[in-house]
Amino acid sequence: MFRPEIKVLDCTIRDGGLMNNWQFEDEFVKAVFEACCAAGIDYMEIGYKSSESAFSRSEHGAWKFCADDDIRRVIGDDCHQRGIKLAAMADIGRVEYEDIPPKDESVITLIRVACYVHQIDKAIALAEHCLDKGYETTINLMAVSRAMERDLDEALDDVAQSRVPVFYLVDSFGAMYCEQVERLAKKYVTALPGKTIGYHGHNNQQLAFANTIEAIIHNCNWVDGSMYGIGRGAGNCPLEMLVSFLKNPKFDPRPIYEAVQRHLIPLRKKIDWGYHIPYLITGVLNEHPRSAMKYMAAPEEGSIIDFYNKLADGTVLD
Amino acid sequence: MFRPEIKVLDCTIRDGGLMNNWQFEDEFVKAVFEACCAAGIDYMEIGYKSSESAFSRSEHGAWKFCADDDIRRVIGDDCHQRGIKLAAMADIGRVEYEDIPPKDESVITLIRVACYVHQIDKAIALAEHCLDKGYETTINLMAVSRAMERDLDEALDDVAQSRVPVFYLVDSFGAMYCEQVERLAKKYVTALPGKTIGYHGHNNQQLAFANTIEAIIHNCNWVDGSMYGIGRGAGNCPLEMLVSFLKNPKFDPRPIYEAVQRHLIPLRKKIDWGYHIPYLITGVLNEHPRSAMKYMAAPEEGSIIDFYNKLADGTVLD
Repeated sequence: MFRPEIKVLDCTIRDGGLMNNWQFEDEFVKAVFEACCAAGIDYMEIGYKSSESAFSRSEHGAWKFCADDDIRRVIGDDCHQRGIKLAAMADIGRVEYEDIPPKDESVITLIRVACYVHQIDKAIALAEHCLDKGYETTINLMAVSRAMERDLDEALDDVAQSRVPVFYLVDSFGAMYCEQVERLAKKYVTALPGKTIGYHGHNNQQLAFANTIEAIIHNCNWVDGSMYGIGRGAGNCPLEMLVSFLKNPKFDPRPIYEAVQRHLIPLRKKIDWGYHIPYLITGVLNEHPRSAMKYMAAPEEGSIIDFYNKLADGTVLD
Repeated sequence: MFRPEIKVLDCTIRDGGLMNNWQFEDEFVKAVFEACCAAGIDYMEIGYKSSESAFSRSEHGAWKFCADDDIRRVIGDDCHQRGIKLAAMADIGRVEYEDIPPKDESVITLIRVACYVHQIDKAIALAEHCLDKGYETTINLMAVSRAMERDLDEALDDVAQSRVPVFYLVDSFGAMYCEQVERLAKKYVTALPGKTIGYHGHNNQQLAFANTIEAIIHNCNWVDGSMYGIGRGAGNCPLEMLVSFLKNPKFDPRPIYEAVQRHLIPLRKKIDWGYHIPYLITGVLNEHPRSAMKYMAAPEEGSIIDFYNKLADGTVLD
């Protein structure tokens, strides 16, 4: 699919860090960056922008905070010359306005504001604050598969009237089938004239890549992937698949194949993201993966059928 | 998706056996059978029907041959009372007519004849021979992603005039995206009025499940899966996903979840099917997985980029 306006964002470090508290070796982060540059990736999301007062550096690695000093130390500050832009995610309630430096002091270009539907007003305010500081911004509305339609419609109205230029359809729980992606992508495109729609999938049902194609077909132009699908629980759309699919001549999947073989496969032996039955079950049941992660940590405490039954009955409270 | 005419076929043993020459423990085969019965699966394909004169029992396990004595020994002969039908696959050129007993002497109900497009005449003859012996039959046309359109059209004409009631769309190389599945499913449905169309995918690009949904949307009514996706190379559509998706009340995914945890995950530590970059590459390039399997067996002999480049240039001859 060659549509020049399509932008690809790598979220290897940001979403992958949810599995190891962002305790990546510097060499790993640098290798991901180099592979992204060589592959023609548009944005690399290097972590979260979080308040140092709210989270401890002894528990969380550097990419929970994305301080510019850390970025410059590990990957330098010449990413613009390399043809790639750096991104960081900001969660509502976990970052203060003053944690975000003016753009001209930062290596970061894009700040993506993640929120739930009831936080949309705060998200718009934070995103517009970032715009005013000189950043590109998006809003990523998480867990839309659990949102009530009336609330979603109101949120879309608010976003339509905002200055935020890019809005993401996010399948946080890996619960959507292609029909749902089609319906929501069309809804977002219609509700947000003049804005760009993005898509971020999760792979609980091995549908992240297929749904990303579906989103592209229905005019989502920003799409996310992570190398070898690293990410929370079942992980994300594998970036190497996405780049193999897109026929835009600027993309080259080979550096990503190589980075997977050299860096992701060894890491996968230490951190167990990817396809597992408990993650499939939370996806099928449209649930947050935290109960699956808890089951994965101590599978001897109950059978997989008990896990399914309790979750289907709503008796697993987490 | 509740459409009562949808039939699900489990090919765990048949396709999985391509990875271990069908050297499964009897207990494993029995467990797959029990889980299929409990899950409401319509057909279990227990292996290939092959000539004992052409293949050796010292190299190949029982399910390369599917002798009725072996089936009765391992799973009994009461499968009809259990609500499931047994199937075996027959490859053109690897089985003789006399290897197939009359239906009333066999526990097998369905024989699926697999062929390439140039073998369609032989496939129709064999399938009609099986019909005459009392079996249900299908023809599974492999590698259609490499067939020339004129040859495919002629094959469809021949099948339309045959007595074979079920015809399968097969993505042997895991090369198809949803648009191709849609186009071919519509073509098959149109070309074969009155016949049932099936779908069998491979998972090189993690699209087997998504493409199976696409095939269902476009009126394919027989669909295949294998537990935990076991199968040659990247494997098949994971049966547990398919059964979780189908809402027909006769299906229950829980016995399959349990079989995966108890039997497939331990087996996966010995046999390495599933998602790997070399299989992704053969899928992307619409190639048979044999070159990827060769690379997987000796990855130290060359970089993944060399593998891709040679395959893309057509210089890996296999």
